[in-house]
Amino acid sequence: MVSAYTPPVQALIDELGRLPGIGPKSAQRIAFHLLKLPADDANRLAHAIREAKDKVRFCQRCFNVSEGDLCGYCSDDRRDSSIICVVEESRDIVSVEKTGEFRGRYHVLLGAMSPLEGIGPEQLKIRELLARLGPEGVQEVIVCTNPNTEGEVTAMYLARMLKPLGLTVTRLASGLPVGGDLEYADELTLGRALEGRRPID
Amino acid sequence: MVSAYTPPVQALIDELGRLPGIGPKSAQRIAFHLLKLPADDANRLAHAIREAKDKVRFCQRCFNVSEGDLCGYCSDDRRDSSIICVVEESRDIVSVEKTGEFRGRYHVLLGAMSPLEGIGPEQLKIRELLARLGPEGVQEVIVCTNPNTEGEVTAMYLARMLKPLGLTVTRLASGLPVGGDLEYADELTLGRALEGRRPID
Repeated sequence: MVSAYTPPVQALIDELGRLPGIGPKSAQRIAFHLLKLPADDANRLAHAIREAKDKVRFCQRCFNVSEGDLCGYCSDDRRDSSIICVVEESRDIVSVEKTGEFRGRYHVLLGAMSPLEGIGPEQLKIRELLARLGPEGVQEVIVCTNPNTEGEVTAMYLARMLKPLGLTVTRLASGLPVGGDLEYADELTLGRALEGRRPID
Repeated sequence: MVSAYTPPVQALIDELGRLPGIGPKSAQRIAFHLLKLPADDANRLAHAIREAKDKVRFCQRCFNVSEGDLCGYCSDDRRDSSIICVVEESRDIVSVEKTGEFRGRYHVLLGAMSPLEGIGPEQLKIRELLARLGPEGVQEVIVCTNPNTEGEVTAMYLARMLKPLGLTVTRLASGLPVGGDLEYADELTLGRALEGRRPID
């Protein structure tokens, strides 16, 4: 009696449960929420999924999400093509853009290396990154992968590939969050903050 | 630059963010997960939503989800119609069924009373419950709403409506979970467990 739902309901719960971060209980809750919604509201989600899958592809150069062959950053001539910021996902571009500190180009790896999940460099858009360096006259690569194990492994791998090519390869600084409190910093972050200490101007 | 996504991506994130328990960050993560999936896999979710909305409606008698006019429990003559278990949502029926302890009928309120969210008795299927009592010869109503504020308020309200009609109105026992540990029980639960203490057979 575990699956006592009528088949279309069970199918919906199953599909929702495949989404990242959605467990069986959440899938159930969302499914019943959708069932209770007016048909138009629920179908708007179905429509948004189809629209996004139909219209959105990946930029042929940087693999950012894009409606055209090239994304907005790649087709914007005012951006500095000598410096590339390498991120794991398209959403990270939005975070970097919000800082207003970067006017170069991007490259999206579409993931990070993870031996545990069997994701190696060949599953990421690393070959495509290497192919851009010469033609675009890249001087510096800023590796903006996440400061976690997968991101660090990916950054190390990229640095090993890129340094012999005579490029400047940099990594985001690790340290205390602005507005944070020393007392609540974990040892690793505090250690990184110490290691990366900078002279006061 | 907060919404720097191309419109179909933003539309998808917005629609996902409307789902219960999905915050803006989760909506983003799920959207990019869907964008990276093969089109067939992502569209299966869109299809499941449309299918469920097309095929599934609410049972005309008990408001359980159903593919026909009446749900499986309402159309099963072997079930005892003199006893009705009142639940907040269809998914609660599955929980009760799993116990194997109940062979009566169900009634789904499609929610619980919540003054904070402006949900009063008229938004729930209470009138429809009252209409079933006479024609179906109901003798006992088990109020199986959740043991939280909303569920308790709903249970009190139902008891006040039903008792004058000469019906037996019961409520699920509150107490320690089986396999639980006294040390970790909160005071309220322990208090209820004491209050509801039963003689040892």
